[in-house]
Amino acid sequence: MYAKSATGALRSARRFSTISASSGLKINSERLWNTLHQTCEYGAAHRYGESPTETGMARLTLNDEDARVRRWFAKEVEKLGCSLSIDQMGNMFAKQSGRLGSPAPMIAMGSHLDTQPRGGRYDGILGVMAALEVLRTMKENNFQTNYDVGVVNWTNEEGARFPKSMCSSGVWAGAIPIQKAWDLRDIHDSSVTLRSELERHGYLGEIACSSDAATGYSLGAHFELHIEQGPILPENNRSIGVVRGAQGYRWLTMTVHGKDAHTGTTPFSARQDPLLASSRMIAASHDIAKKHDALASTGIIKVPSNASTNTVSSQVTFTLDIRHPQDHVVHAVQDECLKAFETIASQDGKGVSFDWTLDTDSPAVKFDDDCVASIQAAADQLVGREQSMLMTSGAGHDTVYTSQHCPSAMIFVPCRDGVSHHPTEYCSPQDCALGTQALLEAVVHYDQSRANKENK
Amino acid sequence: MYAKSATGALRSARRFSTISASSGLKINSERLWNTLHQTCEYGAAHRYGESPTETGMARLTLNDEDARVRRWFAKEVEKLGCSLSIDQMGNMFAKQSGRLGSPAPMIAMGSHLDTQPRGGRYDGILGVMAALEVLRTMKENNFQTNYDVGVVNWTNEEGARFPKSMCSSGVWAGAIPIQKAWDLRDIHDSSVTLRSELERHGYLGEIACSSDAATGYSLGAHFELHIEQGPILPENNRSIGVVRGAQGYRWLTMTVHGKDAHTGTTPFSARQDPLLASSRMIAASHDIAKKHDALASTGIIKVPSNASTNTVSSQVTFTLDIRHPQDHVVHAVQDECLKAFETIASQDGKGVSFDWTLDTDSPAVKFDDDCVASIQAAADQLVGREQSMLMTSGAGHDTVYTSQHCPSAMIFVPCRDGVSHHPTEYCSPQDCALGTQALLEAVVHYDQSRANKENK
Repeated sequence: MYAKSATGALRSARRFSTISASSGLKINSERLWNTLHQTCEYGAAHRYGESPTETGMARLTLNDEDARVRRWFAKEVEKLGCSLSIDQMGNMFAKQSGRLGSPAPMIAMGSHLDTQPRGGRYDGILGVMAALEVLRTMKENNFQTNYDVGVVNWTNEEGARFPKSMCSSGVWAGAIPIQKAWDLRDIHDSSVTLRSELERHGYLGEIACSSDAATGYSLGAHFELHIEQGPILPENNRSIGVVRGAQGYRWLTMTVHGKDAHTGTTPFSARQDPLLASSRMIAASHDIAKKHDALASTGIIKVPSNASTNTVSSQVTFTLDIRHPQDHVVHAVQDECLKAFETIASQDGKGVSFDWTLDTDSPAVKFDDDCVASIQAAADQLVGREQSMLMTSGAGHDTVYTSQHCPSAMIFVPCRDGVSHHPTEYCSPQDCALGTQALLEAVVHYDQSRANKENK
Repeated sequence: MYAKSATGALRSARRFSTISASSGLKINSERLWNTLHQTCEYGAAHRYGESPTETGMARLTLNDEDARVRRWFAKEVEKLGCSLSIDQMGNMFAKQSGRLGSPAPMIAMGSHLDTQPRGGRYDGILGVMAALEVLRTMKENNFQTNYDVGVVNWTNEEGARFPKSMCSSGVWAGAIPIQKAWDLRDIHDSSVTLRSELERHGYLGEIACSSDAATGYSLGAHFELHIEQGPILPENNRSIGVVRGAQGYRWLTMTVHGKDAHTGTTPFSARQDPLLASSRMIAASHDIAKKHDALASTGIIKVPSNASTNTVSSQVTFTLDIRHPQDHVVHAVQDECLKAFETIASQDGKGVSFDWTLDTDSPAVKFDDDCVASIQAAADQLVGREQSMLMTSGAGHDTVYTSQHCPSAMIFVPCRDGVSHHPTEYCSPQDCALGTQALLEAVVHYDQSRANKENK
């Protein structure tokens, strides 16, 4: 049984050393752990404990630290004999040749090296470091896959510095126009664009950012190991999540219009109070989502900069993030919220008005059955069916975009208390290693299945 | 009957020209109107219409425009033969000698010339311009009061640039230490203090800012004409508010602590969502206040600067402004809110915690009976009892502080739709004139009563 106690860790270690991996390979968990934390020196921030690794990260897309880890990554994959390609969004594709010499696009293991401004050491980073460890393990064992395999470092997954998440896998997938992505401005310095930073660091590659084999970089499959970023695995005592899709979500920005008025002199009956209305709306959206077993969350609320304690605000904006594995539920929650908001808008005083914009519409995604089967096979073999679980990803990931153009799926490992996007985000050495071994086994399984299929 | 229609305005004008004022004096309403709007050229901002006067104001305390209007004001009162004193907070006291040559402190008409950043042309400004018009009317009619009379321009009433409202009347009253007031920093430029701006403009006077006659500037009485800043006068079709006190209020800042978490991956049951809790608290405070016929308002709500659409916030702060004419009701609402907040804090997910600070505690104030009687006499004579009403001020005013050290009361006139602290704030020429005439009559009445009393 998966447990995070010291005894549990010991059990994990014991269990780990006795797995019978179908690949015959065994990743080096110490090397993985050390490499991950060494590279976290590029961008370490927000210390929260005394151990050297007890810091978070602030490695924002294409800042100097991100450029450093990219140069380090390039050197490491070149040491392994990989060919490295960089596209016009700075996505880095490292390829190790397969033994068949097939021209088929590589089986990729991808994730991202950028972090949130107050992020942790595992979100994205683990996925790239695990992929590197898989290549290293194969290399030192003279193990060659049938087809080309490789690693992708996707640029600006977080969208924290340049506000568009899963940005460059989105461009690669044709979902985001490259000009729009290039023009994204640093949220703190509008004179800096994503493109100007690509140029500054020498990461504006020449090949198109596209899944089109003729002009861009096409992929044969995409596997991503990621921390769960939620409490479901630990709460269910599972150690591997076999991720078969991603829930749909819609992001709305609500703007509630009222009228500024003096809080001391304006009776409730004469008010148009957008903050009171927004408060009722936020509470209502929660209750509606709960009823549908969906999620509705408000992360940002803003009053005008001249707001004061004794003035009813003239306007309030807030975000609404609605999620559910089924698109029709997402839509039902949205519809019900908007209906409730109309009632609320007329409820107090002289009433308020509101309008809204749809900022993101990300329909639910179903990952590739073969990729999911390869991951399930790896999980079965490593921890057994009762220690893994089929899951739907709550968050967006680069794999959501890759899945539009190549067979894709994801592996989740538990992170402590489900915490991510926070300096204290933590994934144990055992879980990092287990996830990495699962990634290796899934890729080898998929490579073998693909060879078997094509040789039929 | 007071009405704001065109016919109503005509009726007001007719009524106004036929008042039999006990002073025998009649203010010049055109001069008042023109002077007020001429001086609003210092700091005019936020145009909302085509007429020259259809702008708001941005004359923040001790900015260059405020310094200009102060210099203009000094010149005007000197032209009238007033002696001008400036204290260490830049409060300006202009005194016209009474005919008795009494050493008793002057009967003051005071208000403020500073505005909100998006303020209007009447809040405070009308009170000072009306006082000036009263002095001008007396001067041109060779009318002398028994005792000294004069005008006060109180510094930083709004507390918008240097965040402490009724700041310098508060220092004068001994309620705010002068060092604390001097050290207030410009909310946009922390290198600038209130004291450094007093020095820059030459308004750091030499006399103490105090009601103590020996070192400061004591006052014999304080009358303030002000726009109501609320809808009660217009909704009751009254033209003069006889203000006998100010409601009590307490300003709290609530800080709700949760835990940041990914909105896509964290089930409601695992969340500690401070924005959801704050929303429920704001709604609850409104409902509790309503039940008590009190006011509870939230003007400011803040999430951390790194808030994002897909992250449950770690912390939320919001303000709570509770008001009622009776202190025990203010306290009851506060107690009930805090109790409700505790229930709310444990309501959703894993619960949140909160703490709070009391930022301002302004007990209810009862103005001086004699001053109120003088204003009521003026109102009776100008518009009759059925057109005036006894009121409690909803907002804080400099008079709240002066009332601690000298007999004080206020006159309210209606402003359009009760709107203030907004560019479109408006008080009609008729209402400005009526209020000014009432101010003159109240001062003359008070001066006469004082003479009668002292000669008994």
